[in-house]
Amino acid sequence: MKKIGVFTHGADASGMNAALRSIYRICHSHHIELIGIRRGLAGLTEADFVPFDRSMTSNIINRGGTVLHTSHFLEFENGDMRHKAVVNLEHAGIEGVIGIGDATTMKVLSQLAREHSVKTVGIPATIDNDLYGSDYTIGFDTAINTATEAIDRIRDTADSSDKVYAIEVMGSESGFLATYVGIACGADYIAIPETLTNVHDLFHKISHANRRFIIVIGEGDEVGGAQELANLMKEAYNLDIRVAVLGHMQRGGTPTVRDRVLASRLGQAAVDALLSGASNIMVGETNGEIHQTPLQMTFERRKALNEQFVRLAEMLG
Amino acid sequence: MKKIGVFTHGADASGMNAALRSIYRICHSHHIELIGIRRGLAGLTEADFVPFDRSMTSNIINRGGTVLHTSHFLEFENGDMRHKAVVNLEHAGIEGVIGIGDATTMKVLSQLAREHSVKTVGIPATIDNDLYGSDYTIGFDTAINTATEAIDRIRDTADSSDKVYAIEVMGSESGFLATYVGIACGADYIAIPETLTNVHDLFHKISHANRRFIIVIGEGDEVGGAQELANLMKEAYNLDIRVAVLGHMQRGGTPTVRDRVLASRLGQAAVDALLSGASNIMVGETNGEIHQTPLQMTFERRKALNEQFVRLAEMLG
Amino acid sequence: MKKIGVFTHGADASGMNAALRSIYRICHSHHIELIGIRRGLAGLTEADFVPFDRSMTSNIINRGGTVLHTSHFLEFENGDMRHKAVVNLEHAGIEGVIGIGDATTMKVLSQLAREHSVKTVGIPATIDNDLYGSDYTIGFDTAINTATEAIDRIRDTADSSDKVYAIEVMGSESGFLATYVGIACGADYIAIPETLTNVHDLFHKISHANRRFIIVIGEGDEVGGAQELANLMKEAYNLDIRVAVLGHMQRGGTPTVRDRVLASRLGQAAVDALLSGASNIMVGETNGEIHQTPLQMTFERRKALNEQFVRLAEMLG
Amino acid sequence: MKKIGVFTHGADASGMNAALRSIYRICHSHHIELIGIRRGLAGLTEADFVPFDRSMTSNIINRGGTVLHTSHFLEFENGDMRHKAVVNLEHAGIEGVIGIGDATTMKVLSQLAREHSVKTVGIPATIDNDLYGSDYTIGFDTAINTATEAIDRIRDTADSSDKVYAIEVMGSESGFLATYVGIACGADYIAIPETLTNVHDLFHKISHANRRFIIVIGEGDEVGGAQELANLMKEAYNLDIRVAVLGHMQRGGTPTVRDRVLASRLGQAAVDALLSGASNIMVGETNGEIHQTPLQMTFERRKALNEQFVRLAEMLG
Repeated sequence: MKKIGVFTHGADASGMNAALRSIYRICHSHHIELIGIRRGLAGLTEADFVPFDRSMTSNIINRGGTVLHTSHFLEFENGDMRHKAVVNLEHAGIEGVIGIGDATTMKVLSQLAREHSVKTVGIPATIDNDLYGSDYTIGFDTAINTATEAIDRIRDTADSSDKVYAIEVMGSESGFLATYVGIACGADYIAIPETLTNVHDLFHKISHANRRFIIVIGEGDEVGGAQELANLMKEAYNLDIRVAVLGHMQRGGTPTVRDRVLASRLGQAAVDALLSGASNIMVGETNGEIHQTPLQMTFERRKALNEQFVRLAEMLG
Repeated sequence: MKKIGVFTHGADASGMNAALRSIYRICHSHHIELIGIRRGLAGLTEADFVPFDRSMTSNIINRGGTVLHTSHFLEFENGDMRHKAVVNLEHAGIEGVIGIGDATTMKVLSQLAREHSVKTVGIPATIDNDLYGSDYTIGFDTAINTATEAIDRIRDTADSSDKVYAIEVMGSESGFLATYVGIACGADYIAIPETLTNVHDLFHKISHANRRFIIVIGEGDEVGGAQELANLMKEAYNLDIRVAVLGHMQRGGTPTVRDRVLASRLGQAAVDALLSGASNIMVGETNGEIHQTPLQMTFERRKALNEQFVRLAEMLG
Repeated sequence: MKKIGVFTHGADASGMNAALRSIYRICHSHHIELIGIRRGLAGLTEADFVPFDRSMTSNIINRGGTVLHTSHFLEFENGDMRHKAVVNLEHAGIEGVIGIGDATTMKVLSQLAREHSVKTVGIPATIDNDLYGSDYTIGFDTAINTATEAIDRIRDTADSSDKVYAIEVMGSESGFLATYVGIACGADYIAIPETLTNVHDLFHKISHANRRFIIVIGEGDEVGGAQELANLMKEAYNLDIRVAVLGHMQRGGTPTVRDRVLASRLGQAAVDALLSGASNIMVGETNGEIHQTPLQMTFERRKALNEQFVRLAEMLG
Repeated sequence: MKKIGVFTHGADASGMNAALRSIYRICHSHHIELIGIRRGLAGLTEADFVPFDRSMTSNIINRGGTVLHTSHFLEFENGDMRHKAVVNLEHAGIEGVIGIGDATTMKVLSQLAREHSVKTVGIPATIDNDLYGSDYTIGFDTAINTATEAIDRIRDTADSSDKVYAIEVMGSESGFLATYVGIACGADYIAIPETLTNVHDLFHKISHANRRFIIVIGEGDEVGGAQELANLMKEAYNLDIRVAVLGHMQRGGTPTVRDRVLASRLGQAAVDALLSGASNIMVGETNGEIHQTPLQMTFERRKALNEQFVRLAEMLG
């Protein structure tokens, strides 16, 4: 293999740049040319390609976002777009493609491999940590630390005034983020999609506590988000809850050590996988070791949240 | 003077604890007893008093919030409540009162001095920086750094996807916070109460830029907040703007050095003022020196935002 | 079991407080009284005991150090001291003891269990991550992030002036910390006890790079620390290397989410272990699950650094 | 004026990049070409010039160090070198030069103006804050926050073990940094060049405290640094003091809001000064307003540390 392409797609996650740096350096040590595909699937369709050199990966290991930029290019579901992409890859002489991103990215890589025999390898990167095949995804560790730092700040205010706060964190499909953050910030209650939020019980818990009370709620909870919960509580019990939605700030920022190291490892593993002839797989880290998982499993199977964490959160709340 | 009381009132601000520590230590060196009045004006009315000792101010210089807690006790506008407060102070033998907080706190201190001859001194503490009589108020420096750090994170995402973001920061009456933060994060546009936000011009600026565009908007802007601006842009020009409201997280957190030093200085100055016989004044720092300002001026006069900052922001945007 | 004692011993590690909070809350839910043994083994010998209540564990989950304080009480190797300790425990009615700390702590807990039939459970907490029986020890994740953040800063200077820096991090026995930090900060060379540092090769690598060059060196490297390496390079090749020793600042600070969650889990597991009748064991987390390891194994066996990390560091350097 | 040159010289300081960005944007708005002189005076002598464009100043406002790089080019004291520099400037058509840096930089700018009639303007940037003509220099605010954050961490350890620590911060000529940091971290003693360190009194203060004791010492104190102080205390009183030297990490890192805003303002002021015909001056901020100071005064006069700060530190210690 002489030429590999790489893109980042979907929502950005801190550590994507560290993965790009690792991929470039491993390719370089194998004398493989690395082509950056800009703006994810949009750039793949439009042949927005740029060859990597050392300066492109210099001093990016500690920067959030992605120097290749990204997109949410929904048009790629159109077969014509995928055909264009394949033609672009062939024309550029790209023999293998590494895609860094979330479940959507894995789906597309799987399609390209199955329909068009493109050699594809995925690297899991999403702050939601909801991809099967890797204990952690790139960006998750940074996001939980960012969210917890923000909640530590809010807690200063909550402690000073003995109010009730509902703080909404990301995680539309799963409660990984809310659970880790909730335990870490000493939340009094954690609301996640995996468990049923009983508003009646929650109200009694708050009343019983009779002091500042912090609820961490994942955006995917069946109640809705923090505002919906506050509305429910107001209507049902005339209870005032202050609302904080952490929002976009959870994605970016200097990546943590774990995210930089995971990204560096998975970058190496992805190049190694392509060189060994593997395709249609995602590289991940499970129990500290590198594993390959068929792409289709990564988005079809559901990675379960360890129930011990849920129980721990309940006992400490 | 043998016994001084101190309270924190209104919204908390990082550095309040550093002020309390300073006040305690300065009192201690003068052999004055310091009484903590808990929960602001609520505690003053209910005689919720606690004597300070060294352990109460140990390791709090670097903690956000206020160990004395605070409240928004609107009932204090009732003269009966103020009468209760004065009785409580007399009963406890408190000869002078230091109040730490925002404009409302200064108003109350002024009332107590004028109506009831209580010796009062104010210390300005609000993240909005909108009190006349001090170049900076305690909590402002921490808040601008917290907000800027959050926007730095959002910018990673914005840069990765070339979208338009409207980010709302605090500041209901004045644009200090939005202006400092806007300059610091390299915002493309800053919307503040002090200037008129021309939506038409803004749209053209965004269109012309044709890349990621970051608007920092103070919550007190005449357009409304970030969501209102986004709605206006959607209706008028069908332009999609992503909204981020930084919210409560702007208040708390480990105070910066400037806030700790300012709080330490003003704590010393407040005790010195009471000891020298001053009353009905706020201590502040102007041009690096300690000054006293009659309490009434602090909330009646408006501290103007330096126009040079506004122009600088426009030129760099 | 009605009464449990807990102490923190040796060097402090961020997350010890989160462990104490978890232990207290789990004990509380089981109606077990928790006794804090202050200043580690010194306090155990002197019966410096304090009963835990909710206020002691309030708002400590996010604070570095240990509210119980710690000591390096070498006199405990004396059998008389241990006898005193056992008498103190019996006298206070303490039926089980949880010790939080490093290898020395595990040794002492093992002695108390074997010699005196005290029910003991250990929780691994050391920034060095060098205890067998847990993939990670409490404090490690915070330390690697703190060290990396400091090196990120130094790199700004290094990049601006194209100099060579040797930066010494902690880790007297093992290279976990240096390896994670080295990969995360994009070090050009990592010197650890597990591998031989070839000064000649290193010099050629530096000369060949001909630009800023960052060496991360563990304090336990066979060359010595950063200063010794710089001296060697100066003598042998007249090469100037700037030295930075990160030192004590690596221990403290607000714990990361991983350290808070790990500490919370291990706190729960330690109480559960005592309640289930276990003794003379350390609780740890391996491959995401809680495991118990006989105390003697934890300090006699050597936890190996994953060789893949060493090779990854070499390839990316 | 059609073409301006800019360089950064000496030790780097956080905010230099924000100044470069501001200078570029202000020049751009005046249709002036901006030439970057790389590696400070070394690049000036070797005509290492690069024209600025928007991409060079994109996303650098929040990055430490300097994208233009810097040097300590002592050979510039040689008149031949300065002659070369002047020829290079003329040859490139550069009509005015902005130099960003410390006292040495101001000296050189002064020489070029006086000896060779080069139009020069200086911008003060040094973490030591020891230039006359500006209340604060670029980089100081970031450095005091970085140092304080590191000491906050060390304090966690100090509090846990009741030891005595001497922590050395930068500041070879003046005690600005040590004083701000000392007050902010609640130091028990601050040793600075401006005051005499009485080792005997210090020993008694430590003995009297009989608990953890933190000394912040500026590297320029007449005792020497932290290690020298510890040696003195060991020899004279057999007192063990733990030593921490913060070192190089104090320079870099993401600049604070104050440093970004100050740098943005001074960048604008420097261009404005050149355009208005000024030369041989440094722009600075005094009492919140922009002022110009003859270059020679900036390094010949000594900016005094406000004595109130020294006394405050003593009273709070």
